[in-house]
Amino acid sequence: MSGRPTVACVGGGVIGRSWAVAFAAGGAAVRVYDVDGATLERARRFAGRSLRQLGDSGFCDDAGEALSRIRFLDSLEDAVAEADYIQESIGEDVAAKRRLFDDLARLAPAVAVLASSTSTIPASAFLAGVEGSDRCLVVHPINPPHLIPLVEVCPAPFTSAETVARVVELLSAIGREPVVLNREVRGFIVNRLQLALIGEALHLVGEGYCSAADLDRAVRHSLGLRWALLGPFEAGHLNADGGYYEYMKKFEPAVRELIADLKVDYKWSEKEYRRISLELSQAVGPEDIPQGQARRDSDFLALLGHLRRR
Amino acid sequence: MSGRPTVACVGGGVIGRSWAVAFAAGGAAVRVYDVDGATLERARRFAGRSLRQLGDSGFCDDAGEALSRIRFLDSLEDAVAEADYIQESIGEDVAAKRRLFDDLARLAPAVAVLASSTSTIPASAFLAGVEGSDRCLVVHPINPPHLIPLVEVCPAPFTSAETVARVVELLSAIGREPVVLNREVRGFIVNRLQLALIGEALHLVGEGYCSAADLDRAVRHSLGLRWALLGPFEAGHLNADGGYYEYMKKFEPAVRELIADLKVDYKWSEKEYRRISLELSQAVGPEDIPQGQARRDSDFLALLGHLRRR
Repeated sequence: MSGRPTVACVGGGVIGRSWAVAFAAGGAAVRVYDVDGATLERARRFAGRSLRQLGDSGFCDDAGEALSRIRFLDSLEDAVAEADYIQESIGEDVAAKRRLFDDLARLAPAVAVLASSTSTIPASAFLAGVEGSDRCLVVHPINPPHLIPLVEVCPAPFTSAETVARVVELLSAIGREPVVLNREVRGFIVNRLQLALIGEALHLVGEGYCSAADLDRAVRHSLGLRWALLGPFEAGHLNADGGYYEYMKKFEPAVRELIADLKVDYKWSEKEYRRISLELSQAVGPEDIPQGQARRDSDFLALLGHLRRR
Repeated sequence: MSGRPTVACVGGGVIGRSWAVAFAAGGAAVRVYDVDGATLERARRFAGRSLRQLGDSGFCDDAGEALSRIRFLDSLEDAVAEADYIQESIGEDVAAKRRLFDDLARLAPAVAVLASSTSTIPASAFLAGVEGSDRCLVVHPINPPHLIPLVEVCPAPFTSAETVARVVELLSAIGREPVVLNREVRGFIVNRLQLALIGEALHLVGEGYCSAADLDRAVRHSLGLRWALLGPFEAGHLNADGGYYEYMKKFEPAVRELIADLKVDYKWSEKEYRRISLELSQAVGPEDIPQGQARRDSDFLALLGHLRRR
């Protein structure tokens, strides 16, 4: 994949179109395939808008040129024919994904990497037995992939080390932050960590210890700031002159006791999250959500820009 | 507490001295009391250094003047005699705290608020029965309080609403972000949320799914960025056109299944965190920790500055 790689994004929905933008902004030639013409058209408009925004924020040198490197195609064969790397982003249907990967193995160049965006299915559950499965794996983005740098690279036992190395190289080249998992685990890393915190958040709000808005403020003005700069282990490491060992040695009893008291698997109900939704809608009503999303994305790019300039 | 409030910080250790800086930078007249002269001297040096740094970063209008408003005293009586607000930050010893609050109730003006920095003891466990306990509560900072804006305000059932309102007013006036808990809960909010994520992080690294460094990178380049801008509920609310209800309705089965699979209470051992500490020490050795801490603090102030300018 030296020079300008050619990437095929198979599935042009919310995840696929954002991947296409990430790859194009990073310098790749991109082919977006979708079976549905309307989805392709939405993806095209999204790509234009998002690349302009990346360009305005300094994350894409020439947005117009990047857009011109994306082709939107309704033929899978054409989309993958010259691909060095294929990123599948269709629905979470194991059988459909398996059929698609069998097609990709037949249609794509023999050297192409075949990657799936699935967030819930382990690689070995649908890629075992695909022709040339040593080049198959899960490459899981955090939504939206054109804004969030982190990408989880999740090989199956049969994925070759060379495949993993090529994926890491490609993702790094387009400005993403790949993290490689050593072994398969349900939900991968980021969503497990996220849901651990959210499970306890649902407990605290569900039991009325605080409002959802106050919990959001609490995270935003403490843990979010801390973890935007340092991961949880680094943060602990810097919290004691002797490093992480000394830190944990000191706080071990308190940490154990508090972890034992958590209710991450609190049994929330539909009534609970309906109530939370009503509370959140008082600040941002359904009609204001598109505006909130636009604000979120521009805040996100500004934050990335700030951290890059450090 | 209109005009310039007078705040007494009782206990001048790591937490107390950082509180003193937060109050002085925010405009208060501050008295720091500690029984130990060496601790007071360290607190004085820390205050000078930290206020200069806040001044250089635009978080304190006149660092020299702020420093001159702090007095370091070895007499508890003198320290609290004119205080509008007292922030206790001694060790986590229930009996010692109780004795101290009895002294404070006797020595401080009758209108002074008496607040404890405890991170592990609920207010009702040591403040019940203190003379005038309606003005007593826990005001829990996130370390270090002069940098992290969030403060948890945790009243006991006997704390008056007027006390809570005065605390919120004072903390807001000095540029902190107070969040008031509706009811007592072990560990308050932030440490529960933090430890939920850290518990699962210890599981993932302990079982070898990824390295500690990779887990840190994963958090820093995804959840940290997201939560520095939006709390977990707001983030979900903006993730569906119909808001949080629609978002949870769609992902409920996957969320429930993954939460059930978490191992937040994973039984890690001393061996485990010793290994993590060794891994982290390869990037930042014990001799580099002071430099890492300085970098962390200046990065933190730069990030706060960026977010304030939005």
